[in-house]
Amino acid sequence: MLEFCLVGAGFIGPVHAANIAAHPGARLSWVVDLNVAAGEALAGKYGARVTASLDDALRDPAVGAVLICTPPRTHAAIIERAARAGRAVFCEKPVDLDMQRVDACAQVLAATRTPFHVGFNRRYDPSHRALFDAMRAGEIGRPEMLVLSSRDPEISPPDYVAAMPYGIFYDTMIHDFDMVRWLLAEEPMEVVARTACMLDAKENPHRDPDTAMVMLRMASGALVHVNSSFRAVYGYDQRIEAFGEKGMLISRNHQPTSLERYDADGIRQDPMLRFFIERYAESYVRELDDFVRAVAEQRAPTITLQDGRRALLIAEAAVASAKSGAPIAIAG
Amino acid sequence: MLEFCLVGAGFIGPVHAANIAAHPGARLSWVVDLNVAAGEALAGKYGARVTASLDDALRDPAVGAVLICTPPRTHAAIIERAARAGRAVFCEKPVDLDMQRVDACAQVLAATRTPFHVGFNRRYDPSHRALFDAMRAGEIGRPEMLVLSSRDPEISPPDYVAAMPYGIFYDTMIHDFDMVRWLLAEEPMEVVARTACMLDAKENPHRDPDTAMVMLRMASGALVHVNSSFRAVYGYDQRIEAFGEKGMLISRNHQPTSLERYDADGIRQDPMLRFFIERYAESYVRELDDFVRAVAEQRAPTITLQDGRRALLIAEAAVASAKSGAPIAIAG
Amino acid sequence: MLEFCLVGAGFIGPVHAANIAAHPGARLSWVVDLNVAAGEALAGKYGARVTASLDDALRDPAVGAVLICTPPRTHAAIIERAARAGRAVFCEKPVDLDMQRVDACAQVLAATRTPFHVGFNRRYDPSHRALFDAMRAGEIGRPEMLVLSSRDPEISPPDYVAAMPYGIFYDTMIHDFDMVRWLLAEEPMEVVARTACMLDAKENPHRDPDTAMVMLRMASGALVHVNSSFRAVYGYDQRIEAFGEKGMLISRNHQPTSLERYDADGIRQDPMLRFFIERYAESYVRELDDFVRAVAEQRAPTITLQDGRRALLIAEAAVASAKSGAPIAIAG
Amino acid sequence: MLEFCLVGAGFIGPVHAANIAAHPGARLSWVVDLNVAAGEALAGKYGARVTASLDDALRDPAVGAVLICTPPRTHAAIIERAARAGRAVFCEKPVDLDMQRVDACAQVLAATRTPFHVGFNRRYDPSHRALFDAMRAGEIGRPEMLVLSSRDPEISPPDYVAAMPYGIFYDTMIHDFDMVRWLLAEEPMEVVARTACMLDAKENPHRDPDTAMVMLRMASGALVHVNSSFRAVYGYDQRIEAFGEKGMLISRNHQPTSLERYDADGIRQDPMLRFFIERYAESYVRELDDFVRAVAEQRAPTITLQDGRRALLIAEAAVASAKSGAPIAIAG
Repeated sequence: MLEFCLVGAGFIGPVHAANIAAHPGARLSWVVDLNVAAGEALAGKYGARVTASLDDALRDPAVGAVLICTPPRTHAAIIERAARAGRAVFCEKPVDLDMQRVDACAQVLAATRTPFHVGFNRRYDPSHRALFDAMRAGEIGRPEMLVLSSRDPEISPPDYVAAMPYGIFYDTMIHDFDMVRWLLAEEPMEVVARTACMLDAKENPHRDPDTAMVMLRMASGALVHVNSSFRAVYGYDQRIEAFGEKGMLISRNHQPTSLERYDADGIRQDPMLRFFIERYAESYVRELDDFVRAVAEQRAPTITLQDGRRALLIAEAAVASAKSGAPIAIAG
Repeated sequence: MLEFCLVGAGFIGPVHAANIAAHPGARLSWVVDLNVAAGEALAGKYGARVTASLDDALRDPAVGAVLICTPPRTHAAIIERAARAGRAVFCEKPVDLDMQRVDACAQVLAATRTPFHVGFNRRYDPSHRALFDAMRAGEIGRPEMLVLSSRDPEISPPDYVAAMPYGIFYDTMIHDFDMVRWLLAEEPMEVVARTACMLDAKENPHRDPDTAMVMLRMASGALVHVNSSFRAVYGYDQRIEAFGEKGMLISRNHQPTSLERYDADGIRQDPMLRFFIERYAESYVRELDDFVRAVAEQRAPTITLQDGRRALLIAEAAVASAKSGAPIAIAG
Repeated sequence: MLEFCLVGAGFIGPVHAANIAAHPGARLSWVVDLNVAAGEALAGKYGARVTASLDDALRDPAVGAVLICTPPRTHAAIIERAARAGRAVFCEKPVDLDMQRVDACAQVLAATRTPFHVGFNRRYDPSHRALFDAMRAGEIGRPEMLVLSSRDPEISPPDYVAAMPYGIFYDTMIHDFDMVRWLLAEEPMEVVARTACMLDAKENPHRDPDTAMVMLRMASGALVHVNSSFRAVYGYDQRIEAFGEKGMLISRNHQPTSLERYDADGIRQDPMLRFFIERYAESYVRELDDFVRAVAEQRAPTITLQDGRRALLIAEAAVASAKSGAPIAIAG
Repeated sequence: MLEFCLVGAGFIGPVHAANIAAHPGARLSWVVDLNVAAGEALAGKYGARVTASLDDALRDPAVGAVLICTPPRTHAAIIERAARAGRAVFCEKPVDLDMQRVDACAQVLAATRTPFHVGFNRRYDPSHRALFDAMRAGEIGRPEMLVLSSRDPEISPPDYVAAMPYGIFYDTMIHDFDMVRWLLAEEPMEVVARTACMLDAKENPHRDPDTAMVMLRMASGALVHVNSSFRAVYGYDQRIEAFGEKGMLISRNHQPTSLERYDADGIRQDPMLRFFIERYAESYVRELDDFVRAVAEQRAPTITLQDGRRALLIAEAAVASAKSGAPIAIAG
């Protein structure tokens, strides 16, 4: 039984808490949050203890793992504290947005031999995973092109946007950059990115890019396109298309029901699932399970700090390309 | 070059005229219609001659084939006249609604050794044909169930309905009965039919059945369901589903375009093609081509008078079952 | 917190046990099974007590509800015992296959004022439910035809088949008969049924029907078709099609992933989900939640013994029709 | 009746010849081809005269229009000759691959006031056209992103490739560049292109790019992605996706039949139509009709030399970007 200390009761925290509670090999022991009320609400649901201080929780020897879902800028410090306290760490992406900070983290993790996992949950989505498996099984032969659509139904609140400029790359496409590396099992050599502000000033007061396209050239010569938007009015749009010498694979969108409605205007189906928590519900369950098993089996967790670091490197290059207009080479 | 005399310039006549004109091995020489204006309009388009008298046209030795698309009650007489005049005959279904009349026709055709084809055009539809081919190739093994949906977007005009009571069986499902015999390559042993009048008195003043379901038991034990309606508001609904020991085949509906529209209400596609002439445009082309080739190659045309007779027999049994409520056995 | 005594640790028992354990308002307190090992395995997973005697469990005053998932012939006795012990009852369908036994049960339930729910879980499936909601909202106007496909990937083991002849009606289509009544909110007046044995003697040694079609005529005149098979090799095939004056609704099948594979042979998607427990996983969760809320809110559970009784009546009539060949009228 | 002189009996020539023959307002009078046998074969089919010299045909005063489907490098000279002879001209794209030659052509056309149409037939495809109409009707509001997939099932023969290096831009994507301009009704400001040689040396001995991605930034800020390949083994892949503030439109691929095959491996549909002549059959018919009507109504044909010129400009910029690696600005 792996006992978890969950740090961060907001946003994705409740999803992880519920998954921990439902997992036969895991238990939610502590919830840490500066917002005591939020922490108590979540902890109360699962019989966990609550504190505003991570150190309190780390003093409990029963705690075996720390799951971090606080805001990004706090990740690195928590990772290091948990690592030095000898706990396994599951951290939502990103490790940090500052590369030097990421590298410092890497050193601590290495020195402490901490089992560490970065939460690129999409790798665990059954449809994306089936696409991955089909590629590995050689169904499309050598991959030649990858096309990813990664669109949110709406932009984040202004203060969230202000806290992370170019979030369309750092926060959204970083998932896609991880998918590209995972699916193709190689690194990009070059990035070209273009952005636009399509939302009006009321919705996007900071005029941070809300629309973006990226083109990547991989080491093998394979070409990759990623597009993103912060206003897909029809729902959360998550598609992956892999094209190769022997065919094509498409991981399509998901809908809440299979209902078709026929009338004089045509055939109508449901919009896409609207929230990433619904769309990727299963992926969070499977990701947690994989982490729990990794700790139990004393093997390294699946998605490493290096994976987080490489995805960040691509996001940085995309920002640089979007700002300068030039194609940006990515260091090997 | 097979020269055609087309009898009947209305309804499906223009479709056949255009297909004859476009066929490299056929020519439209005569149009026969009591309505001289209609005949002239059609004949003029393709440089054909026009007459109100079939005999006029049959006197032209260049005419090799007669294509009949007049109202059903006139078919048998025209067939016999054309057969006695030594011409190949392509007749829209049905041969006649009176079985004795059909049998008399059969005798004339046999005595005159007339190449004869009944227009069950749906056998030539590429999608239905692909389903047929897959069945013949054994893709689903032994067939166990067949489910056909055969729905029109609207009811025929009142006078047309009055002229052919129980047209939902005699005029509409007769196509499906032919499909069943063709696809399963066997005869039904028994029919049970139920009907309803769902349209209001304004649309369906004669209270002739506008909605129907039929269950057939085939000689092999296979079970068949057919449903029909005269108000599929979403378009002409033509689906065939064949289920067998090794799988299932579905010939789906066709739409005018492949456009998908995504918005907050979901995904919308086109309604079905609305008119049978659009939906089965290709089948009419292929059917004519098959007839022209049969005549040229001096082989018997594909769909025989017996095919027309057997489909009528099933329609008659369906009417009897709908009227009496009892299951009706079909003579072997 | 509603404490459950689960009777029957096999088959669907583990599904209910897991759903009870995951429900915030429910707890699994007892597992009752004559097979002590099976009972212990299940009880152990959720910290419940185990016994071979229902009476033991009913002596525990904390137990508020009994959930019955034993073989059908044992249902009625357990229902009555639990009712007399003052517990709410959730019983998998059917109540019993003998109508007199069902009626006796009804009397006990009425006399004891027991909150009682029959497990027609499909009413809770999100896609079927969306179809129901669209019908209630008038999207297709007056319903005119209903077409249900209800096919299992394989036949039950021989002893299970031997224990319940005509299980294709009593065990499988009984679900569909409930769906018909629920969706149309009216009763059928007449049933015609036909069956076939399509499986070979090895798979179906008792030659019990493995293939069936049913036609129902409803009080309103609406027509209904249901088909069923015990060898849908492509998976569990569960489709509902509702046709009405203003359009059509289709609840389609579900697949495990959204992957599409393109190659020279075409486009390939996943087969259907194969097991009803996967296909209807969500419906079991929602059904339990509805029952727990009903008990908490002291309202009557949603699906009544009368619902179970009416579905059984239709199944009986279908069997009679299949045996005699005649259409069977259903008492009002 | 518009009489046509068709120049070029190969490749797309027979398609145009058949469409002219079937058009009620057009007639095929002459076929011009240096390969006399090919010319005669085609002319014979439709009762047209044949010659190796365009001048012969232009001497016939009945000829009202010249339709050019010879190899690209011959287009400009034929256009000019036909224009100076006072005939309307329908020319397959491109006008020429040399921009100066195109401009010279433009001067001749202007001086002679020649009705002129460039054959970007895809604008007439019913599905793409429905997408265009929906955009014009404001269904997706302001367009923000366009994603086009434009893939051929195989590479052209080596000598064809040798005659037109970078044909993936000049010959294939030039259609997409026209679609982009047409759909968005604005010009691109900038192009970035990347290519790869994915086919092996046997299939692609000249190592000309067989795989490409392009990113365009439009004057409005809208972003466009186009990808292309010369080995889509699953057929001719032609998709357009338009994303905007109010939703998304997708013009999907077309398949020869609507058959679905279900077995234990899943659901299988037909591959895409393999040849552009099948996929775009209807667009060629509609394009010719539009041209014939334009001439009859004495209005300018729909797709101008400027349209051809602008698409070529984009293709040139794409080649420059692919060669240099740099983003290329496009002159206004």
